Amino acid sequence: MLDRLPSWREGDAKGAILAFVDGVTASGSVAFVPPAARIAVFDNDGTLWCERPTYPQAYFLLERLHAQAVEDPELAARPVVRALLQGDLRAAMAGGLEPLADVLLKTHAGFTAEEFAAATLEWFGRAVHPRFGVSFRSLAYRPMLELIDLLRSATFRVFVVTGGGVEFVRAVSQALYGIPPDDVVGTSVELGVERRDGRMVLVRQAALRGHPNEGEPKPVNIQAHIGLRPIFAAGNSAGDREMLEYCSTGPLPSLAIVIDHDDAEREYAYPGASFTDPHAEPILESAAALGWTVVSMRRDWDAVFDG
Amino acid sequence: MLDRLPSWREGDAKGAILAFVDGVTASGSVAFVPPAARIAVFDNDGTLWCERPTYPQAYFLLERLHAQAVEDPELAARPVVRALLQGDLRAAMAGGLEPLADVLLKTHAGFTAEEFAAATLEWFGRAVHPRFGVSFRSLAYRPMLELIDLLRSATFRVFVVTGGGVEFVRAVSQALYGIPPDDVVGTSVELGVERRDGRMVLVRQAALRGHPNEGEPKPVNIQAHIGLRPIFAAGNSAGDREMLEYCSTGPLPSLAIVIDHDDAEREYAYPGASFTDPHAEPILESAAALGWTVVSMRRDWDAVFDG
Repeated sequence: MLDRLPSWREGDAKGAILAFVDGVTASGSVAFVPPAARIAVFDNDGTLWCERPTYPQAYFLLERLHAQAVEDPELAARPVVRALLQGDLRAAMAGGLEPLADVLLKTHAGFTAEEFAAATLEWFGRAVHPRFGVSFRSLAYRPMLELIDLLRSATFRVFVVTGGGVEFVRAVSQALYGIPPDDVVGTSVELGVERRDGRMVLVRQAALRGHPNEGEPKPVNIQAHIGLRPIFAAGNSAGDREMLEYCSTGPLPSLAIVIDHDDAEREYAYPGASFTDPHAEPILESAAALGWTVVSMRRDWDAVFDG
Repeated sequence: MLDRLPSWREGDAKGAILAFVDGVTASGSVAFVPPAARIAVFDNDGTLWCERPTYPQAYFLLERLHAQAVEDPELAARPVVRALLQGDLRAAMAGGLEPLADVLLKTHAGFTAEEFAAATLEWFGRAVHPRFGVSFRSLAYRPMLELIDLLRSATFRVFVVTGGGVEFVRAVSQALYGIPPDDVVGTSVELGVERRDGRMVLVRQAALRGHPNEGEPKPVNIQAHIGLRPIFAAGNSAGDREMLEYCSTGPLPSLAIVIDHDDAEREYAYPGASFTDPHAEPILESAAALGWTVVSMRRDWDAVFDG
C-alpha cells in the first residue's frame, strides 16, 4: 500500500495521525465526521516553516528598518532601533513589546496592500537563511506538507492560523502550502481607505487591528474567520495552547499535535515558548495534561525540509 | 447553446455579465484574468435575498427581544424596546443607532457560538415572511443563484460580504448559496473565551467587534479576510458603494453591478439607501458616475425568487 506520509517514520505520532484520518472518513465509524466539519488549522512559524534563529518576517522587517535608519538619524539613534539592527532582540525588548511594535509597525506604514504584497514577494525572491544558505521558501517542513496533502485528500479544508503578519504569510502561502490568501488567518494592521490617481487603495497604518494572533485570540479569530471549530490543529509553542485546546475539547472527534523542536543537528532544539507571554505554560506540559500528540522532529521525521 | 443565465431576460445587464465572464476566461484576450485573481463578492440583504419589509435578521432578533421583554419589565419599559416591539423602526431609531444597537446586541449575549448557530437554524426552520407566507430560506433571488453558479463555473471564488451578522448568514449560506461559513464576511460581535464543563467555548459579548460591515469597512474587511481585490462585485444600497468602487477601480478588468429594486409587484420598489448613513449618495447616482451596470429587477429578471 502507498505510504501516505512517506517522510514520517513509523511510530506513535504517525500512527495517531493515520488512525484519526481513517476514523473521520469511515462512514459508519463512531469517529466519522461529516465533510463540512472537517476543518484543519496549522500554526505557521515553527509548525510549517523554520522560525530560527528568528522569524523570517523579522529579517524582512529589519532590512526595511535598516534602510529607514540610514535615511533618518533620529530613528537610528533610538535604543530599540540600535538594538534591533545589532541583532540583539533581548535588548530590543528590554522596554517591553510596545516600543518594539511601534518601530516595526512603522516600517511599512503608507504602503498599499498591493505594494506590500509586491515588497514581500520581492524579498522572498532573494533573501537567504543565515545558517542553511537557501531561500526561506525552501524551509517549509516536508512532513507537514505531506500532512496537509493527506488531510486535503480526506476533504479537510486547511487553514493557516499564524501569529505572524497575515499579509506577509499570504504572499507565499499558495506557492508553499497550496493555501490561498483567504485561508490564512493572522495578525493584521489597520487599513485606511484612500483614493490615489482615481483608484481606491487600502493603505497600511502604523497600528495593529485588534490583538496579535497568539494565545486566546487564535480561537477567537478562528471563529471570526472560519466560523467552525477545527477538528485538527497543529502548533509548536505556548502561543498555540488555546487553539489546540479549542480543537481538542469540542464535541467531535479531534486530533491536536505539537511539533517538538528537539533536533539541533538538522534544525534547532528549543522549548516552545510564547513570543508575547513569557510566563505561559510550556506547550509540552499542556500537551501532557490535555492528551495531545507530540511529534519529535528528531525521531518522527525522516526528512525535515522540503527544499 | 445552453442559456447560462436562464432567469435573466436578454438585455444590457445580461449582456454585460456574459461578456465579462467570457473575457476573463479567454486566454489571450486583453480581458483575461488568471484564475487565482478571480474573486467575486456579493452583498447579501437586498442583493442575494429579500430585505423587505425589513431584514430577516431583524425578525430573528425581535422574536428574542419579545421573549426577553416578557421576562424583564424594566427592559420592556425602555422606549426603544417598546418602539421595536410595536414595529416602529423610525421611533426606535429616534435616539440614534446606539440605544438600538445596545438592545439588539444584548439579545444573544452569553450564547456560545454553537448555541447561536443552533438558535439561528431553529428560527430559519419555522419563520415565515409576512407578505409571501413562505420560509425566509425561499426568498433568495434565483437570477443571483444562477450568477453565482456561472462565476463558479468560470473558477471564480465567491464570497458573501454582508452588513448583517456574520454568524446569522453563515447558518444558511451553504444551504442557500453553496457558500461555506468561512467565505462569509460580515458584522461580528466580540467573543469571550470561557471553559464550561471542561470544554473551551466562545461566548458572544454585547459589543460589536470593530465597525458594522457597511461603507468603508466593506473593502477593508475584504482585504482583511480575503487578501485580494475582487474583480466582480454586486450590491444594492449606498452601504455597498465603497465595495463596488474598490472592485471597479482596480488594475484588472472588473464588473460591478447594482440591483435596482423597482418591482413593487413581484417584490418591492425602494431606493438603495444606507442603513447606517442616511446622507450617503444614492447608489444609482454612484453607478452612473462610476460606470457600474444597473440590473432592473422588473425588466431584467424573468423570475425573482428561487423558492
